[in-house]
Amino acid sequence: MKNVNNSKLRIIPLGGLEQIGMNITAFEFEDSIIVVDCGLSFPEDDMLGIDLVIPDVTYLKDNIHKVKGFVITHGHEDHIGALPYIIKDINVPIYATKLTIGIIEHKFKEHNLLKNTKRKVVKHGQSINLGSFRIEFIKTNHSIADASALAIYSPAGIVVHTGDFKVDYTPVFGDAIDLQRFAEIGKKGVLALMCDSTNAERPGFTMSERTVGKTFDNIFAEHRNTRIIIATFASNVDRVQQIINSAYKYGRKVVVEGRSMVNIIGIAGELGYLNIPDNTLIDIEQMRNYPDEQMVLITTGSQGESMAALSRMASDMHRKVTIKPKDTVIFSSNPIPGNEKAVSKVINELTAKGADVIFQDTHVSGHACQEEIKLIYSLVRPKYAIPVHGEFRHLKAQKNIAENLGIPKENIHILQSGDVLELDAQSAKVTGRVPTGAILVDGLGVGDVGNIVLRDRQHLAEDGIMIVVLTLQKFGNQLLAGPDIVSRGFVYVRESEGLMEEARQVVEEALDYCASKHITDWGKIKNTIKEELNSFIWKRTKRNPMILPIIMEV
Amino acid sequence: MKNVNNSKLRIIPLGGLEQIGMNITAFEFEDSIIVVDCGLSFPEDDMLGIDLVIPDVTYLKDNIHKVKGFVITHGHEDHIGALPYIIKDINVPIYATKLTIGIIEHKFKEHNLLKNTKRKVVKHGQSINLGSFRIEFIKTNHSIADASALAIYSPAGIVVHTGDFKVDYTPVFGDAIDLQRFAEIGKKGVLALMCDSTNAERPGFTMSERTVGKTFDNIFAEHRNTRIIIATFASNVDRVQQIINSAYKYGRKVVVEGRSMVNIIGIAGELGYLNIPDNTLIDIEQMRNYPDEQMVLITTGSQGESMAALSRMASDMHRKVTIKPKDTVIFSSNPIPGNEKAVSKVINELTAKGADVIFQDTHVSGHACQEEIKLIYSLVRPKYAIPVHGEFRHLKAQKNIAENLGIPKENIHILQSGDVLELDAQSAKVTGRVPTGAILVDGLGVGDVGNIVLRDRQHLAEDGIMIVVLTLQKFGNQLLAGPDIVSRGFVYVRESEGLMEEARQVVEEALDYCASKHITDWGKIKNTIKEELNSFIWKRTKRNPMILPIIMEV
Repeated sequence: MKNVNNSKLRIIPLGGLEQIGMNITAFEFEDSIIVVDCGLSFPEDDMLGIDLVIPDVTYLKDNIHKVKGFVITHGHEDHIGALPYIIKDINVPIYATKLTIGIIEHKFKEHNLLKNTKRKVVKHGQSINLGSFRIEFIKTNHSIADASALAIYSPAGIVVHTGDFKVDYTPVFGDAIDLQRFAEIGKKGVLALMCDSTNAERPGFTMSERTVGKTFDNIFAEHRNTRIIIATFASNVDRVQQIINSAYKYGRKVVVEGRSMVNIIGIAGELGYLNIPDNTLIDIEQMRNYPDEQMVLITTGSQGESMAALSRMASDMHRKVTIKPKDTVIFSSNPIPGNEKAVSKVINELTAKGADVIFQDTHVSGHACQEEIKLIYSLVRPKYAIPVHGEFRHLKAQKNIAENLGIPKENIHILQSGDVLELDAQSAKVTGRVPTGAILVDGLGVGDVGNIVLRDRQHLAEDGIMIVVLTLQKFGNQLLAGPDIVSRGFVYVRESEGLMEEARQVVEEALDYCASKHITDWGKIKNTIKEELNSFIWKRTKRNPMILPIIMEV
Repeated sequence: MKNVNNSKLRIIPLGGLEQIGMNITAFEFEDSIIVVDCGLSFPEDDMLGIDLVIPDVTYLKDNIHKVKGFVITHGHEDHIGALPYIIKDINVPIYATKLTIGIIEHKFKEHNLLKNTKRKVVKHGQSINLGSFRIEFIKTNHSIADASALAIYSPAGIVVHTGDFKVDYTPVFGDAIDLQRFAEIGKKGVLALMCDSTNAERPGFTMSERTVGKTFDNIFAEHRNTRIIIATFASNVDRVQQIINSAYKYGRKVVVEGRSMVNIIGIAGELGYLNIPDNTLIDIEQMRNYPDEQMVLITTGSQGESMAALSRMASDMHRKVTIKPKDTVIFSSNPIPGNEKAVSKVINELTAKGADVIFQDTHVSGHACQEEIKLIYSLVRPKYAIPVHGEFRHLKAQKNIAENLGIPKENIHILQSGDVLELDAQSAKVTGRVPTGAILVDGLGVGDVGNIVLRDRQHLAEDGIMIVVLTLQKFGNQLLAGPDIVSRGFVYVRESEGLMEEARQVVEEALDYCASKHITDWGKIKNTIKEELNSFIWKRTKRNPMILPIIMEV
């Protein structure tokens, strides 16, 4: 695709709205492209058997000579998760803050990608030059440490991208969001603001992370005689820090359980993002040496994930931890939409084992609510607004906020994946589209499962399969063996012997019919079997199993 | 099963805790059994392809000579839905209030059951005698009209069963809950209270249904120039009444859309539970005769159900209603846990079409919160407490409330499905268990899909199936045709031709191996094929399709 107007900046989301989670946006000016974030999303309910979904980056591949680098705002999966897959095709340097790079490197190590890729640590306040762009990293607050907003300087103007953020005046680690810098850049004149929309429907301000620490202290004070188990997001290092603080204050040892939790705490500890007093962290094997009232377990599984540590504890499948009637279990998390039932299942299992389950005031969001969004708009005062990060309803809610703040309707752009927004100080409009899409990852296969396979899986899931096998004589089409009918996922065979025998007869009649009509084409024979069997089974059971005739010849 | 102690009352939940929704409880005293409610539940996420789940009533069948009748508290699916299935085996009279019977009769009509079953209308305040029992119907409030609590008088004492209830001092239709009667019965001395636990985790009081009417009025006042579409639960007749009231007040015509909504409004209107001013309700075909600002649509689909009217409108699949950019769409409902994502999908689709979606203060619960539960306990003052209706966490929350109100721990019983609680004024304890369980309904099949079939469906859903067919010579076991491999739901065949050819070779090698070892047993040959192919496919794809070898002989 050729750049029609060389003096304009082009902003192209390659994921996002259609696939929440796949945060990846290309910024293009003349011969330079930079890519902000490279996230993955998790499969929708109808994507049966799929492990991950990654963005289609055909546009970057087609313009590989222009691509200068990935600029990453923070270390959450929906911003970095697709890197190990994409970097194989788009092998350009990756720029991010220290913890973010640490998490990416851990990922790359697992994918054996450390050797042939380049990663560079950038500090807040620093800028990097990439082709026509200069990108400045600005300190923000979020539910993972070291999150950044980006000021993207291009010859067409400055774009401020907030990344995922909240305003925390009293953060647990490091500084508050650098509001002064937002204001300073705003003063210079900002072309466009791309602001996090996740909580744009929620009025007010998101509470400080520190308030959760206070709740922990209260719970620890009230539960001095029981073991405490806390489930939270592995990547929320500040949350873990506050648990460690409360544990230390109340004389408890801390055990960390769950692979992702152990990984992140390892990385964050090594890089200096966690302050763990000596002799506080102990190995899970040492747990037996301490009484319950001196123990805190920090664990994964706050979303009810069936294979995570807490779920395994709740269902007696954990090898090292058994829930006891007096345990205090804290969910330091809210269920992500779609996980409510799974979380409730774990709560029920824990409650049934006699544990005391606490989930009130034990979590705060990492995303800005309406008042914070208004604050950022008021500091940055952009000409154009491009709400990002959220479902359509959330982007729309931010659009309403922007309108109320006086940004003209026509200057607010909600972009679809693949939209090419061309903008400069004079105008901003969507001038074209580039190919985008979701690539499904299933096991080792990247992109080898698509709609037909998914439709088959759904069909199989719903009603199972009936396989009709028969052997015909070569040339003569005389039936030599079968028809045999084998079913899976349809009905108990034991309870349906009669039905199966009748089905066999239906197939035989279909074959007789074909013979009488001198139909010898296998495709037609198969279709006749399918139709007859399908209508017989529907009439008898009101079900639609997949019917698969297989003909062999001897 | 023999009654060991004839002087005790036996309370036996035949559904409930393990299958939320299947509300059905047997009360047994000597030679009399009455059954309170007969609900169905909807399939869990892992019950692929299942339509409904109904309770196993083997215990009732085995004691059919004792069963005197069904006593139904209200007309929600989780209290009446299994009746059409169960009544075929347990054909005893059904007792309920007028609207509840009306809804049951509509169901029975569809199942062709009106002729050979008995139904009797009972008024609030009235009692019926069934064997050793007398059952009094007490007026309550709930999200469906004509809900009842039951006072169950037995020689062993009185049990008060609240049904699903809330305390609404200002109900839309009819009287407030008959608190005086609860108090009066409490004064007589109540053996046990079975109280609704749904909202037992929520502090405070549930708001009156009338508050939603006020919100409707406000929204109607603020949106005089747009069409209004309101989605709510079909069975919430009072909610529908309030929409009609607001429509009438603001000069709008009302269209009702969605099969279950049309049904319930028909029944409720006929029986006098709805007051519809003349010329207010119009047919959907007449809609074109009125401008948008004079229309209200009441529709199903408030839970994001993909086939319901609102979802079809949102995705442009509705034949008669198209969403327009200025429509005001109100969700008068909260998402039931598990439906959050589906609801959000519909909201996104509506928002993307430019509709203004409202979901705040437009719904109140039909269930009692903590203060209401305390009120009922304080009026009834039971000796024993048996929390009902809810997940384990909710029953446990009510247990905590009961304990705080001074009921001794050992007098509070959380029952599992099938538990037999024997009680009288001296003691209450679980003395045994009766068979219970969930029977899966799939199409016309009741109980012909069980764990093996479901496990197969899950396996098929996850990774698809590979079918290996071959024809062997009778006696000789010589390969005459095949092996052919057919797959469904596994990978795009086009993209995996190489893999399939290799897989065929793996099967051939497995057959050669069997031949060289003189293995002629088909079971063993199939197992060898399965194992070899499985390990090959896993190594190459990290997937586990179901592998199904089929051998024919000629």
